[in-house]
Amino acid sequence: MTERAERRGRGARSARREEAAQAHGAPYIVRNIPTYDILSEENLLRIEHTADRILAEIGIEFRDDPVALDHWKRAGAKVDGLLVRFEPGMLREIVSSAPAEFTQYARNPENNVQIGGRNVVFAPAYGSPFVMDLDKGRRYGTLEDFRNLIKLAQSSPWLHHSGGTICEPVDVPVNKRHLDMVYSHIRYSDHPFMGSVTAEERAEDSIEMARILFGADFVDRNCVILGNVNVNSPLVWDGTMTNSLRAYARANQAAVIVPFILGGAMGPVTNAGAIAQSYAETLAGCALTQLERKGAPVIFGNFLSSMSLRSGSPTFGTPEPAIGSMVIGQLARRLKLPLRCAGNFSNSKLPDGQAMQEGLMSMLSAVHCGANFILHSAGFLDGLLSMSYEKFVMDADLCGALHSYLAGVTVDDNSLAFDAFEEVGPGSHFLGSAHTMRNYQTAFWDSALSDNEPFEKWSGEGGSTDIAARANRQWKKVLAEYQAPPLDEAVDEALRDFVARKKAAVDDAWY
Amino acid sequence: MTERAERRGRGARSARREEAAQAHGAPYIVRNIPTYDILSEENLLRIEHTADRILAEIGIEFRDDPVALDHWKRAGAKVDGLLVRFEPGMLREIVSSAPAEFTQYARNPENNVQIGGRNVVFAPAYGSPFVMDLDKGRRYGTLEDFRNLIKLAQSSPWLHHSGGTICEPVDVPVNKRHLDMVYSHIRYSDHPFMGSVTAEERAEDSIEMARILFGADFVDRNCVILGNVNVNSPLVWDGTMTNSLRAYARANQAAVIVPFILGGAMGPVTNAGAIAQSYAETLAGCALTQLERKGAPVIFGNFLSSMSLRSGSPTFGTPEPAIGSMVIGQLARRLKLPLRCAGNFSNSKLPDGQAMQEGLMSMLSAVHCGANFILHSAGFLDGLLSMSYEKFVMDADLCGALHSYLAGVTVDDNSLAFDAFEEVGPGSHFLGSAHTMRNYQTAFWDSALSDNEPFEKWSGEGGSTDIAARANRQWKKVLAEYQAPPLDEAVDEALRDFVARKKAAVDDAWY
Repeated sequence: MTERAERRGRGARSARREEAAQAHGAPYIVRNIPTYDILSEENLLRIEHTADRILAEIGIEFRDDPVALDHWKRAGAKVDGLLVRFEPGMLREIVSSAPAEFTQYARNPENNVQIGGRNVVFAPAYGSPFVMDLDKGRRYGTLEDFRNLIKLAQSSPWLHHSGGTICEPVDVPVNKRHLDMVYSHIRYSDHPFMGSVTAEERAEDSIEMARILFGADFVDRNCVILGNVNVNSPLVWDGTMTNSLRAYARANQAAVIVPFILGGAMGPVTNAGAIAQSYAETLAGCALTQLERKGAPVIFGNFLSSMSLRSGSPTFGTPEPAIGSMVIGQLARRLKLPLRCAGNFSNSKLPDGQAMQEGLMSMLSAVHCGANFILHSAGFLDGLLSMSYEKFVMDADLCGALHSYLAGVTVDDNSLAFDAFEEVGPGSHFLGSAHTMRNYQTAFWDSALSDNEPFEKWSGEGGSTDIAARANRQWKKVLAEYQAPPLDEAVDEALRDFVARKKAAVDDAWY
Repeated sequence: MTERAERRGRGARSARREEAAQAHGAPYIVRNIPTYDILSEENLLRIEHTADRILAEIGIEFRDDPVALDHWKRAGAKVDGLLVRFEPGMLREIVSSAPAEFTQYARNPENNVQIGGRNVVFAPAYGSPFVMDLDKGRRYGTLEDFRNLIKLAQSSPWLHHSGGTICEPVDVPVNKRHLDMVYSHIRYSDHPFMGSVTAEERAEDSIEMARILFGADFVDRNCVILGNVNVNSPLVWDGTMTNSLRAYARANQAAVIVPFILGGAMGPVTNAGAIAQSYAETLAGCALTQLERKGAPVIFGNFLSSMSLRSGSPTFGTPEPAIGSMVIGQLARRLKLPLRCAGNFSNSKLPDGQAMQEGLMSMLSAVHCGANFILHSAGFLDGLLSMSYEKFVMDADLCGALHSYLAGVTVDDNSLAFDAFEEVGPGSHFLGSAHTMRNYQTAFWDSALSDNEPFEKWSGEGGSTDIAARANRQWKKVLAEYQAPPLDEAVDEALRDFVARKKAAVDDAWY
């Protein structure tokens, strides 16, 4: 950790402690518990060795991107048509120039986040074409939904990042959507955000809007926008993605490199093999950013998933990807790269028990594996296809609990409380003791959505609600009370001009 | 681990692998992932040191049990009226005679469980006065409910143990209840079970019934029944509990020693202090079993809980107890005692998202902290007050997922799947590959209750159900299909005679 990061970390910790009492979050979490390392050195080496063999003997195809192929040739890889093969160790050497930790700046500097090291950043879910709520059910997402979800994220004390394609605004043409999305993040949130990757020029537009907001010089020197790029697993990088990846790297912005591997379909049905493949694919993407611009920030990403034997459907929040994520974390730390891994996933179509059980199993794996940037921390239902308004606020509340979880157990004279035992002694109680009075306000996480009343009160004045019904009330209240953070008028106008100009220059395209 | 235990472990592992394909469970789990150790040696020592000071300077009261006070005097503790003080290290020395691992025998030897070491045993929740289901809501538990819940546990491939007071059969007099409970466990289950602790003679009756089942000699040499005894925190052991504790130890049966500490009430509001207290209280109870009978099996137990600042109600499934459990696990392993810790707890009154989120956070902490005997693995809602039929089958299904979770990541040539990459190559898929065909049946946990269908199918023929509705159908189906395991007629008659005789000997008492 750099000295600067450590200063930030310390600041964040003490600030967090103070703010916790007022139910405010921290700009990001500095974890105070270790990662959960489940695999031996010997087995990690076997996985790395298999990844090396995949890279050297099978290779990865890079389609529709001659510049990428040129990069590989110059770096000494074996290029045979579109197929690129890499000598063992070559990619690890290349990625060693990427920073182990970096700051992503927000337009409100209090919301800057530190990505890498012991830091944890929660960002909303990303990419659903549908939205759902308990009143109106499931429908295609719109720009209004997109803005609503940004407002919910901005209003939560427990989410640190505005995310990116928080839902697909399907009512806006595909080739203009990115402009409205990036503008909405800037306008309705003052947290860090992500840009488009669906075409190189859309990535460039996203970065250009960041330049309007932060200034071109600042952007060239600092990370202010992330782009999440996917591998076309198994072992294919498409040009759309590598062109966007290179656009972000060229601008010194961080690409997040993510294979999505559904075991048995895009990768082997066994965890160790899927992990080896994922490692190989991500490593190649991370290395490509360094060939485009040495020292550019990059995030080592991963998304393992499983399959139902009965239906052939993908399954989420199951034990195998959760446990596999812990291994991914161990491998990423050996590379000294910031990690994005797992998130809050469920295949349930409702914010029910299945949704929260699957979501938490997956989310805790992200927390345990040491992920630094946890995309998909809030909102997903329906196997990634829908953003649920209720689930969003339930997950954000869970993120609050995870702030307390990651704070671990403090061991000092105050927390050991020997004075309390002297005061209370056997057979009495601690309710009014000096130690309790001194500590109770910050002692325990207090959920805004969980019901902890006695049964009689819950079933009486409580109205016998389940948590989904309480979440339904909650998101409406939050939206009603939302106030946009102030934005400099000149910057706002420049951004709106840019969007208008770009939109006017091309015809609508809907696919 | 003894050689015998290791043999068992290996047997269980290979058996489990085979049986997994047929959706059968194992008699118990041998964990293949490490425990999650979150605290440094230095901080563990500070907690132990505080516990030592509590034991030496504050002391513990032992009420209404002169024999216990005699034991302590002879062992060299300072006894001052009811207050007993212990020199640092004295209790650790005494408990060193307790076994690190032992077998609890079941009447069906295939269901014997190994408690301690790397073994994990799931047992149902314990002690609720109420039961609830979606049809009839919440009401007092009856003997019929008690039997139904045993049948559900017996029918689940993922629960290893029949538990004890699976609910309170409130329709049976308090002083006769234990006879019907123990008989029901023996009659309707062939898994290991627990006996009564609410009075010394009820503990003795429970053990006597075990002697009828297993033979007196066998019982004197082997553990066949557990008794769960609670500390009256802070720092008081009541005679009812120590008399029962000593009855189990005297008979060479395992007492489970459990303080229930609600932080801020029965213990300090800070985790480190509550852990130190809990450690001290449990250690004293474990030591007392060894003074009653050196070498008797005993389980180091723990139950941390938190409090809502808004309502003053206890809260469950919150982050602080979850994270505190990991520390308890580290401390128990330093004592080389089998551990009971955490379980599946929630304050929700419905099997909803809150229930499963809180339940899983708590349950995963039990799994991560290395608990060997996980009481309360299934059924609790309503802050320990109610057993829910739906939650029971949902939790049992989760226990199935945890079998896969605890199996970790296998790393060998088959799982690394290099042959699959050679077969498939870039840009294809693994669906029909030889590796997938060879491995798919055992690759992924497949929940019996989760919905993984596409939205259209779920909302069409699926009936738009939530998991609670599916669980409601499930428990009814299981009860309808339940078949009692065969029980030797002569044994059954002897047990029924014993129960009838004991019941006839006293008048009903209802409190």
